[in-house]
Amino acid sequence: MLNHYSSKLVEEAVGELSKLPGIGKRTAMRLALHLLKQDAAYSERLGNSIIQMRENILFCKKCHNISDHEICEICNNPKRDVQLICVVEDIRDVIAIENTGQFLGLYHVLGGLISPMDGISPSNLTIEQLKNRIETENIKEIILALSATVEGDTTNFYIYRQLKEKAVKISTIARGVAIGDEIEFADEITLGRSIVARLPYETGL
Amino acid sequence: MLNHYSSKLVEEAVGELSKLPGIGKRTAMRLALHLLKQDAAYSERLGNSIIQMRENILFCKKCHNISDHEICEICNNPKRDVQLICVVEDIRDVIAIENTGQFLGLYHVLGGLISPMDGISPSNLTIEQLKNRIETENIKEIILALSATVEGDTTNFYIYRQLKEKAVKISTIARGVAIGDEIEFADEITLGRSIVARLPYETGL
Repeated sequence: MLNHYSSKLVEEAVGELSKLPGIGKRTAMRLALHLLKQDAAYSERLGNSIIQMRENILFCKKCHNISDHEICEICNNPKRDVQLICVVEDIRDVIAIENTGQFLGLYHVLGGLISPMDGISPSNLTIEQLKNRIETENIKEIILALSATVEGDTTNFYIYRQLKEKAVKISTIARGVAIGDEIEFADEITLGRSIVARLPYETGL
Repeated sequence: MLNHYSSKLVEEAVGELSKLPGIGKRTAMRLALHLLKQDAAYSERLGNSIIQMRENILFCKKCHNISDHEICEICNNPKRDVQLICVVEDIRDVIAIENTGQFLGLYHVLGGLISPMDGISPSNLTIEQLKNRIETENIKEIILALSATVEGDTTNFYIYRQLKEKAVKISTIARGVAIGDEIEFADEITLGRSIVARLPYETGL
């Protein structure tokens, strides 16, 4: 085959970029062209930020959230409620919940969900570490905030069974019709559940 | 604002990634998470390939194609027809045409199309350099292979006017119903043009 890129440098960058999820050869080429049109300083910042992130990232020893230190900023924050733990799938969920500004406890990042189809068993997740935290830290309540999928429900149930003997309250986040959504477009399961789990009017406001 | 990323390293990488075209904060976060799950070696290869590409890329002095050398591999290839130049918008078009294996002349990369709306005038493109090539190299024919858009047509016409006094044949690529396309779904303009520009049966095969 001819080297149709006419530049090994571009070919290599396109090759590496196209290994990213959701980025094919065509998109990778578009990104490379974009980089070539920008200042060299930008490519340097981009490249170095990727290398630095991967090389120096740590995972918090307590909650397994990403962190620049051994213990993350959230676990280290004296204003947070250390008796309340929110269990999430990955760090994106931590960001999403932090953005709400409604949760002031700590987190526990599982690193995935139980999925026999994808070969992910409980031992691949940080469930043992969660049990240890409940035994060693003085935790009152854990909130399961996992996706409402088969994998999420399986993981919820597994964790529930592991922890039900412990002296800890286990709750899950509320499910229902999203705020701003129209009733007629809500899916049946969500709508049904939001009727069964209805709240006194004042609470629901 | 709270640092919701809980890691400056991740925040920075996500910030730089989300400056890429078509990549928002959410996708950037997904890419960063993916990188964190891969070997550090991959992030290093990706980061370095981007930095190296931008720092060391050259543009061929003859055709303005990207190149690792002063004169690109295509211009330097003794097997190519040096009297035939294909004029294209950017290097993606060079790759696309090279992939057909049907063109054995040289290229001239304009670096864009004339677009007053985007503030791109002929002086932003390599049209002067194209004129110089026609005057100094012994070129018999140039093929205009620009997109069939307003900008493409404007650029075609501008180049045609600049070159029509020169002793060079000017042609454009054939337009018509794409191979594999069904007639009923072809747009009217393309279909009309492909009827007007019909070919003798043997040629059209």
